[in-house]
Amino acid sequence: MNLKGNRITQLFNIQYPIIQGGMVWCSGWRLASAVSNNGGLGLLGAGSMHPDVLREHIQKMKKATQKPWGVNVPLLYPEMEEIMDILVQEEVKIVFTSAGSPAKWTGFLKKHGITVVHVIANSRFAKKCEDAGVDAIVAEGFEAGGHNGREETTTMTLIPLVKKVSKLPLIAAGGIGSGCQTLAAMALGADGVQIGSLFALSKESSAHEVFKNYAVKALEGDTLLSLKQLAPVRLLRNRFFDMVKDAEQGCASVDELKALLGKGRAKKGIFEGDLDEGELEIGQVASLVDEIKPVANIFEDLLRDFDEGFNRLSL
Amino acid sequence: MNLKGNRITQLFNIQYPIIQGGMVWCSGWRLASAVSNNGGLGLLGAGSMHPDVLREHIQKMKKATQKPWGVNVPLLYPEMEEIMDILVQEEVKIVFTSAGSPAKWTGFLKKHGITVVHVIANSRFAKKCEDAGVDAIVAEGFEAGGHNGREETTTMTLIPLVKKVSKLPLIAAGGIGSGCQTLAAMALGADGVQIGSLFALSKESSAHEVFKNYAVKALEGDTLLSLKQLAPVRLLRNRFFDMVKDAEQGCASVDELKALLGKGRAKKGIFEGDLDEGELEIGQVASLVDEIKPVANIFEDLLRDFDEGFNRLSL
Repeated sequence: MNLKGNRITQLFNIQYPIIQGGMVWCSGWRLASAVSNNGGLGLLGAGSMHPDVLREHIQKMKKATQKPWGVNVPLLYPEMEEIMDILVQEEVKIVFTSAGSPAKWTGFLKKHGITVVHVIANSRFAKKCEDAGVDAIVAEGFEAGGHNGREETTTMTLIPLVKKVSKLPLIAAGGIGSGCQTLAAMALGADGVQIGSLFALSKESSAHEVFKNYAVKALEGDTLLSLKQLAPVRLLRNRFFDMVKDAEQGCASVDELKALLGKGRAKKGIFEGDLDEGELEIGQVASLVDEIKPVANIFEDLLRDFDEGFNRLSL
Repeated sequence: MNLKGNRITQLFNIQYPIIQGGMVWCSGWRLASAVSNNGGLGLLGAGSMHPDVLREHIQKMKKATQKPWGVNVPLLYPEMEEIMDILVQEEVKIVFTSAGSPAKWTGFLKKHGITVVHVIANSRFAKKCEDAGVDAIVAEGFEAGGHNGREETTTMTLIPLVKKVSKLPLIAAGGIGSGCQTLAAMALGADGVQIGSLFALSKESSAHEVFKNYAVKALEGDTLLSLKQLAPVRLLRNRFFDMVKDAEQGCASVDELKALLGKGRAKKGIFEGDLDEGELEIGQVASLVDEIKPVANIFEDLLRDFDEGFNRLSL
C-alpha cells in the first residue's frame, strides 16, 4: 500500500500524497493550513486574491502551520509580476501554476529555489512541462469543477495518456473525493491526487455556507461543462446556468455570452452565496458529497476508505 | 488480487471478469467467440442485426465456442418481440439489455431461465434495475463510445454513485482499455469491466479495416459527445462530425439534425469504412489504443498490465 511514502510525499515532504486544489473563493489560509496540518498539502488559491490579500493570507498561513504548503497561481490573471515577487519575498516554497504556459514562469520560480507544479488537461502539455523544468504535473480530467480542457478527456483516460508520455511525478485531479477514488487514481498510474470539490465543501473552506449547503445537495447531471465558446467551465445548475443554457441554445454570439457572464460572478456565487446570479463552480464529485465536514474528518474518512478499498482489492 | 474468481465470474461462469461490450457493427460471432474462448464474456451485438442475421450469428457462435457467451439487445430497436423469441428458442443463456427500461423484458427473460444484465448511465436507474430483478448492472460513463447518458457522469464518479445505492454485481464501462484501467474500475467498487473500444479495434472485430486504422490514430479530443439534442452519442472527428458541429453551431432545429443524421450512418462508417459520410462511434479510450491486435494478445497484455498495476499499488 503506497498512500504513504512515494515520490510525491518526498517531493513536498508531506505525510499523504493528497493535495488540496487551490480554488477561487474557497481556499484561503484556514482551509489550506487545515489540510497541511492533517498531513496533506494545502494550497492558497491566488486566483481570487489581489496581491495585498495574497500577502496577508501567506503571512497568516505561516502562523497557522509548520507543515509544508503552497500557492496556486492561475497564470491568466493580471498583476502576475507583482504576485510572483510576493511569492519570492515571502519565501513560498511550493507553487502550482495553471491556466497558461509552464514556459513563462517556471524558470523564474525555480531560480528562487521554489518547487513548481503545473496543471494540465491534456498529455500534449506534459512535454511542455518537462521542457520548462517543472517538478511535477497535475493532470485534471473533464469531471473537475471550474475551468477545464477543451478535449473533455476524463480522468480515467487522461492519467494513462499522460503517464505514457511523461515520467514526471503525476498528480491526478477530477472526480476524486474519496479513498476509493484516490486508490483508483493510483491504479491508473498517478503518484498522488489533487482534491478540489470535497475541500471546497469542507467546514474550513471560505465558500459561503449557502453555496456549500446548495452544492452538497447536487445530484448526477447537476453540473455540466458550460460556456464552451468562451472558456469551458463546469457549473452547478442554478438560474445563471439556465440563462447560459438558454443563450447557447438561442445561438448567442461570443460577445453576447461575454456580456451575460460579465465580471465577478464566481465571487457572487461561491463567496457571497448568491444562488441566482452567481457562477457556481464545482466538480461532478459534489454529487457524492453529502455533508460539510471538518478537514480532519475528511482525512480520517478518506484514509479509512482507501484502506478498505485496498483490502477489498487484495482479497 | 481478484481479477479471477468473484461474483461476476461466478454469475457468468467465466475465468476473468472481463465482458466485451455488445456493439453495433463490431461484435459478431467472430469477436464474441474469441473473447469467450480467451476467458472473458463475449456478447453478440444485436443492435445492428435483423432477426434472421442474429439467429445466424447465434448458431455460428454455438459452433465457435463451448464457453459462456451472451447477446446485447438495445431495447429501442424495432422487431423486439421477434428478437426476444429467437433468444428463447435458441436457448441463449445470458442477455444484456440497454437503451430502454429494464422493466419491460427482464421478467420475460428471467422466466425462461436467462441471466439478465442491464446497462445504465446514472444511479437513478440502478433502483429500477433492482425492482425489475436483473442479475447485474453495467454502469457506463461519459467517456464510452456510442450512445450515452445526458448527465455526462464519468466512470470515476458514476461507479461510486451506483455502488452507493445498489448491492447488485456491478460492471464498469467507459474509459476502460487496459489492465490499469480495469484495476482502477475495481478500486472504485466494480466487480468487473465491460470493454468496448479496445475490442471494436481488435483483429476479430467485424468493423471495416479502414475504420479501425483511422480510429487507432485518434488523439485526445478526437471524440466528443455529439447530437445532444437528439440522443447523445460519442463520435470520432470526421467530415460527418464537422457537419453536425456546423449545424449545431448554426442553431439547427431537432428536425434539421434528424434529417442530417438520416439512417444507416453508423453502418456506413463502422462496417463499410466510409470515413466521410459515416457516423464513427468509438470511446475516448481509442486515444490509448495504438494497434489492431488479436483478442488473445489483448487478454495477454491486459492481464499482465493488471498484475503490474496491482504489484505497484502493493509496494
